[in-house]
Amino acid sequence: MAGYSARKDDHSRRLRRIEGQVRGLQRMVEDDKYCIDVLTQVSAATSALQSFALSLLEEHLAHCVAEAAREGGPEAQAKVKEASDAIARLVRS
Amino acid sequence: MAGYSARKDDHSRRLRRIEGQVRGLQRMVEDDKYCIDVLTQVSAATSALQSFALSLLEEHLAHCVAEAAREGGPEAQAKVKEASDAIARLVRS
Amino acid sequence: MAGYSARKDDHSRRLRRIEGQVRGLQRMVEDDKYCIDVLTQVSAATSALQSFALSLLEEHLAHCVAEAAREGGPEAQAKVKEASDAIARLVRS
Amino acid sequence: MAGYSARKDDHSRRLRRIEGQVRGLQRMVEDDKYCIDVLTQVSAATSALQSFALSLLEEHLAHCVAEAAREGGPEAQAKVKEASDAIARLVRS
Repeated sequence: MAGYSARKDDHSRRLRRIEGQVRGLQRMVEDDKYCIDVLTQVSAATSALQSFALSLLEEHLAHCVAEAAREGGPEAQAKVKEASDAIARLVRS
Repeated sequence: MAGYSARKDDHSRRLRRIEGQVRGLQRMVEDDKYCIDVLTQVSAATSALQSFALSLLEEHLAHCVAEAAREGGPEAQAKVKEASDAIARLVRS
Repeated sequence: MAGYSARKDDHSRRLRRIEGQVRGLQRMVEDDKYCIDVLTQVSAATSALQSFALSLLEEHLAHCVAEAAREGGPEAQAKVKEASDAIARLVRS
Repeated sequence: MAGYSARKDDHSRRLRRIEGQVRGLQRMVEDDKYCIDVLTQVSAATSALQSFALSLLEEHLAHCVAEAAREGGPEAQAKVKEASDAIARLVRS
């Protein structure tokens, strides 16, 4: 079971809303909307994806990483390394 | 006509691919995929949205902003201000 | 003359403040300050650097890029491409 | 003792290098260097600050957060929340 399972419905709802934003972007391009208005919507969709990622990450730290820390050993270190790499990808994307 | 009209098909194709990535994320959450794998996909979708924004912005500078610069006056300044604000939203999102 | 020369004093002042923030970070590390407090200061310094970059970029668009657009030709296109690449580096950094 | 104390020298060295980059930026502005070259250096300094933050964060997760997780209780949850907030500031800055 993934660390975010308790909030699965919440995550699915967020992602459906982001899918709607991306479909809205396609309509804007189809209708030749003004570039700047399209860019504003892209920023909104990007922020929504990042918020989703941040809440997923918080659950991952609270469950998977914390559990590994309690068990200790090399697995605990591997989990921290893996989470840190995911954070680096988020910061740089 | 928007500055990106010549590459409308290319933009629509990119956005459909991003929509597919977001739908893929919904399936991953539905199937309880491992948090880190979900986060990797979020980073990929975020990067794809940013690349789309950057190519839209380049066209906007090459067409709308350059055209306003050639006409000069307060409209030219307004276009630069508007583009700069959009860039700031991208950098901060 | 660079496009930002009119606001050179303002830029130098901002950069000195950022230098002060980075020296403050060295003192925090020296004094074993709490990681989270150090990270908060890093975020502040990063934001200050980005604001500096955004104001430099706005001047560059308003002067160098606009001037090239008025003169037209391949130089105008090269300036837009060059500015777009700089924006991409900012968005991705 | 902060979680990063073992690598204090390494951190101080990185920060001194970043301070040097910011001083280099001041000289570039002083010498009216071309805007795009200044912006390239700003992106380099921003990336260096982010790398520093990411390595600090990894140590914080490996030490402070993992230790709190082993002790458990509300303190463990508070540490995860605090780290998540710091990550959000980094992602958004």
